[in-house]
Amino acid sequence: MTTNRTSSFRIGLLQHASPIGATRDEVHATFATLAREAAGKGAQLIVSQELFGGHYFCQVEDPKWMDLAESIPGPTTTFASSLARELRVEITVSLYERRAPGLFHNTSVYLDASGEIIGMYRKMHIPDDPRFFEKFYFTPGDRGFQVVSGVAETGLLVCWDQWYPEAARLTALRGAELIVYPTAIGWYHQETLADRAQQRDAWITMHRAHAIANGVWVAAVNRIGTEADLTFWGTSMVIDPGGVVVAEASQTEQAVIVHECDRARIEEMRRGWPFLRDRRVDAYSGLQSRMLDGTA
Amino acid sequence: MTTNRTSSFRIGLLQHASPIGATRDEVHATFATLAREAAGKGAQLIVSQELFGGHYFCQVEDPKWMDLAESIPGPTTTFASSLARELRVEITVSLYERRAPGLFHNTSVYLDASGEIIGMYRKMHIPDDPRFFEKFYFTPGDRGFQVVSGVAETGLLVCWDQWYPEAARLTALRGAELIVYPTAIGWYHQETLADRAQQRDAWITMHRAHAIANGVWVAAVNRIGTEADLTFWGTSMVIDPGGVVVAEASQTEQAVIVHECDRARIEEMRRGWPFLRDRRVDAYSGLQSRMLDGTA
Repeated sequence: MTTNRTSSFRIGLLQHASPIGATRDEVHATFATLAREAAGKGAQLIVSQELFGGHYFCQVEDPKWMDLAESIPGPTTTFASSLARELRVEITVSLYERRAPGLFHNTSVYLDASGEIIGMYRKMHIPDDPRFFEKFYFTPGDRGFQVVSGVAETGLLVCWDQWYPEAARLTALRGAELIVYPTAIGWYHQETLADRAQQRDAWITMHRAHAIANGVWVAAVNRIGTEADLTFWGTSMVIDPGGVVVAEASQTEQAVIVHECDRARIEEMRRGWPFLRDRRVDAYSGLQSRMLDGTA
Repeated sequence: MTTNRTSSFRIGLLQHASPIGATRDEVHATFATLAREAAGKGAQLIVSQELFGGHYFCQVEDPKWMDLAESIPGPTTTFASSLARELRVEITVSLYERRAPGLFHNTSVYLDASGEIIGMYRKMHIPDDPRFFEKFYFTPGDRGFQVVSGVAETGLLVCWDQWYPEAARLTALRGAELIVYPTAIGWYHQETLADRAQQRDAWITMHRAHAIANGVWVAAVNRIGTEADLTFWGTSMVIDPGGVVVAEASQTEQAVIVHECDRARIEEMRRGWPFLRDRRVDAYSGLQSRMLDGTA
């Protein structure tokens, strides 16, 4: 972490629907309205939800949705650049990146307050479950884990990464003060209420654990609304380096969260629980194995 | 994981005080009473709390406490061996190991139901905070992470290890179905109530996250009672592979928890959330670094 920083930074999380049938321009207009509200409340870094510009198309495998992919720079970064300049805020946007014909990624782009692209992360861990057919659409990232120096040292992870302690740790080791997780997670309508509660609670728990284990601020930004077989559970949240959920949006309502993140809280937690001091880096080589069962 | 297993295994967690001034024989008598109760309730594997045989001596740095260290085999394993044979149960005991003059470890020993030692783990991550001066007493383990094949494939971690996702992951990759954490964690009496709540909640959260991230059963066994400046918070618990706390002892009372752990729950969670499938083992080499800041 660099010194010579202000004592805190303010992040803004924008939670909204990106309904089936809405055009990218329509969703961008919603985003811009919420971003203006966040900037008005003092946000210095605004974080989008995952693939915020439209519906979550991965519920089915259909190559037609690859038409939604865009280059970088492209329509979404042009929109975000203009908005960043207008509001004098930094913005991270999550988009479907077209890198070459037949080669696509799930990518976060970080723009500074002058609208310049200063960072990019390609989602490293790609899920594939019924109704979340992401391996069809996205090649796993090849740029490793990324921290961008803006108003904060910000680590850019995405959704499925949230289940991997390795991803949070590597991002923290690169100096992150804050890790942001744009997300598109929800329930399949045939799941039981008990399973739904367990899933959402586990999802919250993992983010809290990343904050605790690494002594960093964590923010997750999830969409709301029903799209075909899925209802996304919102619950965008900010977690402090002690694992305390300090701000949380509802499961169903559009929301703007602006939170001031105190750098002293990182220092306090890392001094009180100095986990980074005691890591057994001499004994971690097995983490590069698929399974330690002697078959490889 | 081996096939040809029963559909479940039953674990017994023994939570009790190990007060200052009590002799090892007195504490062993308490343990034996609780172990008989657990065996009577069907426990197949009984797990002790950390350094269960006496008070938590690490509150001060005094070489006289090294007199408590013992060889393996030694008094504690002889006691546990006899108890295992009597009750026909497997037992893990946590003890202060004397390996050579001036060389000591914080060690878990696993005995089978015939009283034989079939596994041993030396605590890998050693804390050192005011009132937890463990680096004075314990050399960090040199046997790596360990899974013992008993009634379950059981990973043996200890206390401070619980804050390290690396430890849980490496243990899971070795085939653990269950990870047990003998623990001695409590509050310093001058801490605020808010800090106490945050600490205990973070502690629970980390164990739950290990269960979720790895799709394994997790058990933590902590002591109760006040010893000098510390009050230990009990809360021994069993967590299922979905991160649900399925059994939890009080913060203050002696307790025996016996829980039947269903192997199908591991299979269910790992199929539903197949995190092991998607680990980016090609991108994890940085986990063997202290910090990814370019200074090493």
